[in-house]
Amino acid sequence: MTSRTAPELLSLLTAAGGGWVSGAEISRRLGVSRTAIWKHIEALRLLGYEIEAAPRKGYRLVARPDLLTPEEVRAGLATRRLGRVVEYRETVGSTNDLAKEMARQGAPEGLLVLAEQQTAGKGRLGRSWTTPPGAAIAMSLVLRPDLPPHAAPRITLAAAVAVTEAVREAAGVAAGIKWPNDVQVNGRKLCGILTEMEAEMDRVAFVVLGIGLNVTLRREQMDPSFRETATSLALEGAPPVRRAALVQAILARFEAVYDELLGDRFDRVLDRWRALSVTLGQAVRALGLDGQPVLEGVAEEVDQEGALLVRDGAGQVHRVVSGEVSLRPAHAQDR
Amino acid sequence: MTSRTAPELLSLLTAAGGGWVSGAEISRRLGVSRTAIWKHIEALRLLGYEIEAAPRKGYRLVARPDLLTPEEVRAGLATRRLGRVVEYRETVGSTNDLAKEMARQGAPEGLLVLAEQQTAGKGRLGRSWTTPPGAAIAMSLVLRPDLPPHAAPRITLAAAVAVTEAVREAAGVAAGIKWPNDVQVNGRKLCGILTEMEAEMDRVAFVVLGIGLNVTLRREQMDPSFRETATSLALEGAPPVRRAALVQAILARFEAVYDELLGDRFDRVLDRWRALSVTLGQAVRALGLDGQPVLEGVAEEVDQEGALLVRDGAGQVHRVVSGEVSLRPAHAQDR
Repeated sequence: MTSRTAPELLSLLTAAGGGWVSGAEISRRLGVSRTAIWKHIEALRLLGYEIEAAPRKGYRLVARPDLLTPEEVRAGLATRRLGRVVEYRETVGSTNDLAKEMARQGAPEGLLVLAEQQTAGKGRLGRSWTTPPGAAIAMSLVLRPDLPPHAAPRITLAAAVAVTEAVREAAGVAAGIKWPNDVQVNGRKLCGILTEMEAEMDRVAFVVLGIGLNVTLRREQMDPSFRETATSLALEGAPPVRRAALVQAILARFEAVYDELLGDRFDRVLDRWRALSVTLGQAVRALGLDGQPVLEGVAEEVDQEGALLVRDGAGQVHRVVSGEVSLRPAHAQDR
Repeated sequence: MTSRTAPELLSLLTAAGGGWVSGAEISRRLGVSRTAIWKHIEALRLLGYEIEAAPRKGYRLVARPDLLTPEEVRAGLATRRLGRVVEYRETVGSTNDLAKEMARQGAPEGLLVLAEQQTAGKGRLGRSWTTPPGAAIAMSLVLRPDLPPHAAPRITLAAAVAVTEAVREAAGVAAGIKWPNDVQVNGRKLCGILTEMEAEMDRVAFVVLGIGLNVTLRREQMDPSFRETATSLALEGAPPVRRAALVQAILARFEAVYDELLGDRFDRVLDRWRALSVTLGQAVRALGLDGQPVLEGVAEEVDQEGALLVRDGAGQVHRVVSGEVSLRPAHAQDR
């Protein structure tokens, strides 16, 4: 399954939409013998694909496993350079850590690390992030943007846009972005984004963009401390969606916004961020990392560096930088 | 030599300024037996220390090797937390790379990597940096500042201040800072600073501050491409200075400016940077990384993020960010 034939074969069967594809056509399209086709069909079956075979009709794909294997992700992938090479693990400590390690060894832009399960998944600011087997997407992308470090947060904002749009389209849930980069549905966190980088002071060596998206995760699979504040596509009533298809949708949308960003058109990405924001226009309370309120006001705008501009009661505008505060609706809980 | 006794013994002999220190006093001050003292003396001699011993007089230090060993650097070191732990190598690929590796493994703030020779030393923007054995200082410091990445360039500016002041005082040369962070004497580069970091978008995980300072380097030891533009303390006519003493002076000064920086008093550091700058007030030409001129004008100011503000002929002020341009005097060469 290391050859290019298996994903192309999958692609062909998928394109037929469950209909039959003759052996002759497969043989012609992929340039392989009928015997070779059979071997690839067998290999796919071992991975969990249900493929029906019938004399004179050929083959048809009846069911496919909901896996994040390179075969699943690459078959039909619409990107030009992101996610074309996939490092897949059933279990990994953290996809971000593995991606950073591979980036240090020279992995090129676009390398995608995918895992069914993370045993030591990480959220922002050193928090932990749960990824039970098969219930979520844990993906980390190696990027090598020609940017100074101070511009790197744009990548996080662009990723929030890509994930939110992909989730809205592919899963039909009303996702929005809570500043800076949580993807929420109905006020609960659906997806976290953890962007890490290695840099000199004036240029980025590489960025690892980590996306953790809860797909079928049930409440009892969540860390108890997250049960009130987190959600998953299934919990929000989304129809079943294949995780690989979600990954593909995220990659395609991200590649587009990333190209805008690199092409000095970050304004356009920011416009989309604003349109998807659930924070702008809201009364918010900024809490210091010690949990103490530092500021209350109305979230008015986000700037080019991703900072939030909050106007307080006296009319003064404060620039709130991610990492220094967390945000709550101003009317929440203990007020 | 892994015990604390050897550096303390050196410290004691050094404090006597070449005078005699009795075995009884050493025994009392260090809390070890006379026999143990003899063993440590022998170990120091093996490292290149010339120590005279005489009945009834005791010991006196006649000469010490010009090495960057932990013993040399720690004996008399005035810092509280920087450079108290030293990782010493006779030869290393790059002190920055080793420091980054150790930081990833959890090395604490203040760990100092020192080497007599680098075989793959690095300058900014992927350039190479020559460090022949014993002729220069190659030092890399692990820092864990509680800063967002956009504030990290302040560390580089602070380091330029520390090195320049240390070199002026300890070696008596008229060093100045060429924006952003080259330490120059008479228009030639004496010291390069390479700051690297690992970070999330909103906080720094660690910074490695690399300082490469040419001490006795002769012109023929330099990479041919640097011979016209680089210099060393010896080439500038400085009297011989022990490298370990220079490291100590740099560490002490850097700890002070780093504390200012962390204590929200970066303004003071910037004032010292301005005082040492050879760039401010000068007519400059900014060159893009492709070597093409992008801007000419007068360098007026440096801002909190380390960017240079250049006023062009039409009176407009441009913010020049390090890494996007290099700087030349406007009257240089091919004009």
